[in-house]
Amino acid sequence: MQPATATLANLKIDGDRLRADFEALAQIGETSGGGINRLALSSEDLLARAWFADRVEDAGLRIRDDDAGNLSGLLLSSNANAKTLLVGSHLDSVPNGGRFDGSLGVCAALECLRTIREAGVALPVHLETIDFTDDEGCWRSLFGVRAMAGMLTPDDINDTRGDNAPFRAALTRAGIEPRQVFGARREPESFAGYVELHIEQGSRLERGGIDIGIVTGIVGRTTFEIKFHGQAGHSGTTDMYKRRDALRGAAQFITRAHDVTRERYGDGIFNCGNIDVQPGAFNVIPSRARLTVEVRHVNAAMLGEMETTLMRLARESAAAHLLTVDIERLGGMPAATMSETFIETVEAVCQKLGVSHTRLVSYAGHAAQITSQFMPSAMIFIPSVEGISHHPREFSKWEDVVNGANVLLHTILKLSCSASAG
Amino acid sequence: MQPATATLANLKIDGDRLRADFEALAQIGETSGGGINRLALSSEDLLARAWFADRVEDAGLRIRDDDAGNLSGLLLSSNANAKTLLVGSHLDSVPNGGRFDGSLGVCAALECLRTIREAGVALPVHLETIDFTDDEGCWRSLFGVRAMAGMLTPDDINDTRGDNAPFRAALTRAGIEPRQVFGARREPESFAGYVELHIEQGSRLERGGIDIGIVTGIVGRTTFEIKFHGQAGHSGTTDMYKRRDALRGAAQFITRAHDVTRERYGDGIFNCGNIDVQPGAFNVIPSRARLTVEVRHVNAAMLGEMETTLMRLARESAAAHLLTVDIERLGGMPAATMSETFIETVEAVCQKLGVSHTRLVSYAGHAAQITSQFMPSAMIFIPSVEGISHHPREFSKWEDVVNGANVLLHTILKLSCSASAG
Repeated sequence: MQPATATLANLKIDGDRLRADFEALAQIGETSGGGINRLALSSEDLLARAWFADRVEDAGLRIRDDDAGNLSGLLLSSNANAKTLLVGSHLDSVPNGGRFDGSLGVCAALECLRTIREAGVALPVHLETIDFTDDEGCWRSLFGVRAMAGMLTPDDINDTRGDNAPFRAALTRAGIEPRQVFGARREPESFAGYVELHIEQGSRLERGGIDIGIVTGIVGRTTFEIKFHGQAGHSGTTDMYKRRDALRGAAQFITRAHDVTRERYGDGIFNCGNIDVQPGAFNVIPSRARLTVEVRHVNAAMLGEMETTLMRLARESAAAHLLTVDIERLGGMPAATMSETFIETVEAVCQKLGVSHTRLVSYAGHAAQITSQFMPSAMIFIPSVEGISHHPREFSKWEDVVNGANVLLHTILKLSCSASAG
Repeated sequence: MQPATATLANLKIDGDRLRADFEALAQIGETSGGGINRLALSSEDLLARAWFADRVEDAGLRIRDDDAGNLSGLLLSSNANAKTLLVGSHLDSVPNGGRFDGSLGVCAALECLRTIREAGVALPVHLETIDFTDDEGCWRSLFGVRAMAGMLTPDDINDTRGDNAPFRAALTRAGIEPRQVFGARREPESFAGYVELHIEQGSRLERGGIDIGIVTGIVGRTTFEIKFHGQAGHSGTTDMYKRRDALRGAAQFITRAHDVTRERYGDGIFNCGNIDVQPGAFNVIPSRARLTVEVRHVNAAMLGEMETTLMRLARESAAAHLLTVDIERLGGMPAATMSETFIETVEAVCQKLGVSHTRLVSYAGHAAQITSQFMPSAMIFIPSVEGISHHPREFSKWEDVVNGANVLLHTILKLSCSASAG
């Protein structure tokens, strides 16, 4: 029985049911410190996936998994040729991460589909709640969604570069055949779009007292290994003008890279996360400094410009200290723009529901970074207390979770109608 | 039979005999790359000491060893109450070091005593050629000479701080009883002075085309461990104004410390030899950077001022990035001044022998740094090709070695007479 439009407009998710799911899931891989250890393809991740499959069945949804291990619950339209509106996130966590990152999006998507199913709405699109495999990159960043996008390369699986055997073993244990993962690719035309609810992982919403953040873009991220090469020598006796101190050049680069990023690239981020120095003794001039570097920007063109500027800075810092430098681009994720139509849809929903909202940029990577390359995508953020994330203290207030889930629900409903009309 | 003074003035060491010794010693611990691995108390070091003891016996000198393993050959005065003029260096090497560092001084001192004994000179002082235990600090820097000086502390041997068990085991294997090492102390009044021939380990002599360097002072050296403490966080999402990046503060400190040293302390040296960063991932803001730092200056007061300035700089760099800092002074060696009388004696010898000479400062540590605290001391440097040291390519021309050994011989003879007159 189809409820009246007036009833649909007042549809709400069941907060208690969502909370029961959320708390049950938080026990899988829970650490003594209150955090979550649920690394992709670990036994904890497999337990969480089994739990999710049970909830999908309980909800009367159809289970689907693909060749890359992405796990879905489907609420099908009566129109077999309908497009699919994908709603999801991920069940895996970073090491000693928090209870909200990913889990929130999966539980809320499941609750939305349950609510819609119970309301007996006739769907012009298929709805699919999905858990993407290894979103956090314990093995390969955004593995599952890249498989769906057809963006995996043989390097991701084969031993053409590095030892992929442990990853293949982990896939195999999870019932995923490494040679078949490319089969997870789906046609872009089959999708109506992608929506994800997530915690902000920053403190802009909390500081502004705003209920909902609507993501306009996701930062692109490029990682580099930069090696400064000098010459070892006795720290006391080597002539000053002959010194080729790899760490001195590296330190100047780190300092200047941070400064230049702040001066020229307001939204850009530079991080040097590690240095390895050789030979590493008190009284020996460092001959090598190997840096672990990351560059982020939300604008793809600006990201490219930042990379060029910072790598030139590395070469200048090397030259200033008589060093040579090797720069290797290790990987990255593209900068992504969310769909303006979808953003406006979420804004309209927020206004209708009477929750405050703002547009913002995501400085963390998400599956939408990939989905947005081939389908319209949106992300809905709720406030993170103190902006803490990837940490056991990661927390969001329950009223914000319920707010977010209801915004997700009505965004799904509104996008479904638009997709049907389109 | 006592030779005439005219004959004494023409006395020369036997270059071929010195070369035979030098090359025999260079085979003990020789590496495939042409370097020397003869770490203090290693089996190679023990072999070298046994070889040296044999040469001392062959030369008709009296063997002496003390409770800290210092090994000597004595050429005694007929006056049993005479003071001792100590001439020596060390047989141990740094890892993969060169053939000249230390070995030259021991072989040349042995050759000088042999030459003097064969000349039948009546000695107003006892002459003692010595190999100091662990001069390079594989276990404890300048261990043997500090034992002789009575400068060892229980910390050097006991487990009051750190695990000294491996060091005690190495001492025991070498026949040195760890609890007895303090017994190596000798009375300052028993010495006439200390002289050492060494390679420069820098390139000032080679660049100036000068035969002999006469050391005026030896740099003092202080080592620190400096820990910058910040807070780990997601490199993408953490608010810019909340970042407490330990590596950013550390990098600024390293850069500024080098700059300030060059600007304000012309003769001073700053070295940061290592950094350890935690947690060390691409996408995590570093929470801790632990630096291995060394400060050197030839002037004790200036060394103290440098330490104060640089440690203030560490605190300022920490404060500028919202970090805290722990500074631990790990150890050091005092700045030392050589005896002006001894310096003038070496200068007079050089003039008599017709070799060019200059005064210079030693930027490396040496036993004379300790001996000069309680007896007049001198160091004679010969040129190092390209200034390379602590490296298999460490090299000095043989004519420079012979020059240096003859300057050492006549310095011993001249100081012996002065000591007798004094």
